[in-house]
Amino acid sequence: MKSIIQKYNHEKTQWCVGGLTRHRSIFNGLSVFVDDKFMECHLTKPKVVIIHDAVRPFVNEDILLKIATAANDHGAAGAIRPLVSTVIATNSEHFLDHSLERSKYRASEMPQAFLFDTIYKAYQKCTEYDFEYGTECLHLVLSYCNTQAKLIEGPPTLWKVTYKQDLFAAESLIKETLSQNVYVITDVDQEALQLGHCLKKMLMTQHMDVEVISAEYGKKKLCIPHVSSQESYNIIIIGNTDLQEKQEVIDVIANSSMTLLYPMVLILVYISLPESTPFSKKLDEPSAIRRLAKEAKHRNILVYGLLVNYTKDSEELNESLENMCFISKSLMKDRNSALTGQLLVV
Amino acid sequence: MKSIIQKYNHEKTQWCVGGLTRHRSIFNGLSVFVDDKFMECHLTKPKVVIIHDAVRPFVNEDILLKIATAANDHGAAGAIRPLVSTVIATNSEHFLDHSLERSKYRASEMPQAFLFDTIYKAYQKCTEYDFEYGTECLHLVLSYCNTQAKLIEGPPTLWKVTYKQDLFAAESLIKETLSQNVYVITDVDQEALQLGHCLKKMLMTQHMDVEVISAEYGKKKLCIPHVSSQESYNIIIIGNTDLQEKQEVIDVIANSSMTLLYPMVLILVYISLPESTPFSKKLDEPSAIRRLAKEAKHRNILVYGLLVNYTKDSEELNESLENMCFISKSLMKDRNSALTGQLLVV
Repeated sequence: MKSIIQKYNHEKTQWCVGGLTRHRSIFNGLSVFVDDKFMECHLTKPKVVIIHDAVRPFVNEDILLKIATAANDHGAAGAIRPLVSTVIATNSEHFLDHSLERSKYRASEMPQAFLFDTIYKAYQKCTEYDFEYGTECLHLVLSYCNTQAKLIEGPPTLWKVTYKQDLFAAESLIKETLSQNVYVITDVDQEALQLGHCLKKMLMTQHMDVEVISAEYGKKKLCIPHVSSQESYNIIIIGNTDLQEKQEVIDVIANSSMTLLYPMVLILVYISLPESTPFSKKLDEPSAIRRLAKEAKHRNILVYGLLVNYTKDSEELNESLENMCFISKSLMKDRNSALTGQLLVV
Repeated sequence: MKSIIQKYNHEKTQWCVGGLTRHRSIFNGLSVFVDDKFMECHLTKPKVVIIHDAVRPFVNEDILLKIATAANDHGAAGAIRPLVSTVIATNSEHFLDHSLERSKYRASEMPQAFLFDTIYKAYQKCTEYDFEYGTECLHLVLSYCNTQAKLIEGPPTLWKVTYKQDLFAAESLIKETLSQNVYVITDVDQEALQLGHCLKKMLMTQHMDVEVISAEYGKKKLCIPHVSSQESYNIIIIGNTDLQEKQEVIDVIANSSMTLLYPMVLILVYISLPESTPFSKKLDEPSAIRRLAKEAKHRNILVYGLLVNYTKDSEELNESLENMCFISKSLMKDRNSALTGQLLVV
């Protein structure tokens, strides 16, 4: 945990030792603010404290603000969700004892928030049995401080990542979020500009946020700080300018902090004009892309090549462009590291 | 629903009209066995009936057998799961009323099974309020027939596909299942046999079930009935034999019922020997693969090309083979329709 805090520069994070049960761990966390042992951290005791499960990684700012405000007003607040299944009580022989009317109950989720003094007092007063078997902070403040928590409906993404299928779902949700916007940097020649324009139009119909920037040879790396400031994890470069320029773009990305959390997708689009040498005959280019991609992968940048056969036949061209859009979208969504360095043809 | 039943040849399926609430729909379903309207279907009233939610698509035979047997013995049985979150009761002003001790309660899931006469009697006796607001069949047989259901722990895959993240999870689980076994059909020459052998060894370390079959020119299509009988959804063909043979394999697959439920993945592995013409110079081959793949996609077969540079240098060859394994695995797992027809190079 210490190494993670250091690697990701979490300057505001203070760790403390966990306990053998949920309530012991939370109590240890709260104690950091009042325990003399942590004097040197200069932590000020907060008025409101938020408690959360790491196993619910998709918590958003909106629900945090709502429950913190409600805790400030009422002493305690927690997120709830409707029950997905009916809850039943069993007897000791595994037979049904009774079932609960689903509409009268809710699932208690995290985050929860409390006035610091209230939750801390509840922990000081609670029993060994609570520490050992309890699972609900809201129950403690009700029992020991007579504080009734305000309950606030949370979004479905607060669900607890528990089973294998939850890990699959979490991965897909992250990938969906990462593939929502893209920067397209084009050469300044006519074909590249046209391709960039078409790609923007098509990706926008797929509900993607697309920004197109055109830059002269050698200037593309100057666009990267802008991409980085918009927290975009996808870049498409359109144009046949040589690999040296693309290498420079990779260097700028790798030296920013963009790739710290997630892999970046970089798609290099080449244009094969009917009058020029067929790109597929330039044997050195595909293997140069493979080398570039192999090295970039170590820096958490996934590089793919895309070759567009540019024809004057507008129907054929349109099919190529649709295909380019379809493939680009899928590369950004899948973030498949097995396919980096491939030159795909549309 | 009728068209689905017809398309997938569900000969044992009888549909009936649903109701406005859960209990009304189930009652309609049960009535099929005793209602004169359905006389012409010649349905025999069963001793035990299983009730299930379509929204839990991953039910397995094991749990069905367990609950059906338990219902036969005890009159009623249902699947349960541990609670993931604490359940709380709220008051009318959205404040916490009390929380339930998590260890004493369970989530009631589906499937459930009943003696037919018991559940049917319960529905005949239950009130309009039950029909309108009730959610639990086990509650009805307890209240109206005094039958205590036996509760049986189900697997986590019984979860209810409810939210967007659940659809992601369901898709990934299906794709994982489909990518667990593969048939490799090789040419009879030395390089193809060696590649097939290596691929088997490597994919098996990735927990895949791999069977290698070698067949002479023109005989590969004869292997398909065997693949089909093993319910495998992945085939890799290794060797440079011409596309006519591959087209014949595609025809056999398309004419079987294999692709009815899921897309089939077909990977064509080509071997580029150092002494022969570089494959990448044979301009017609890649575009022929694209045409073949485009046509196959309409028949629910996803075709990908994979070109292996075969060298005598054992270290280089090993890297190529690892790459081939890595890419093949990912193609079978992702089943990405955007990438069909591509010739990937390792």
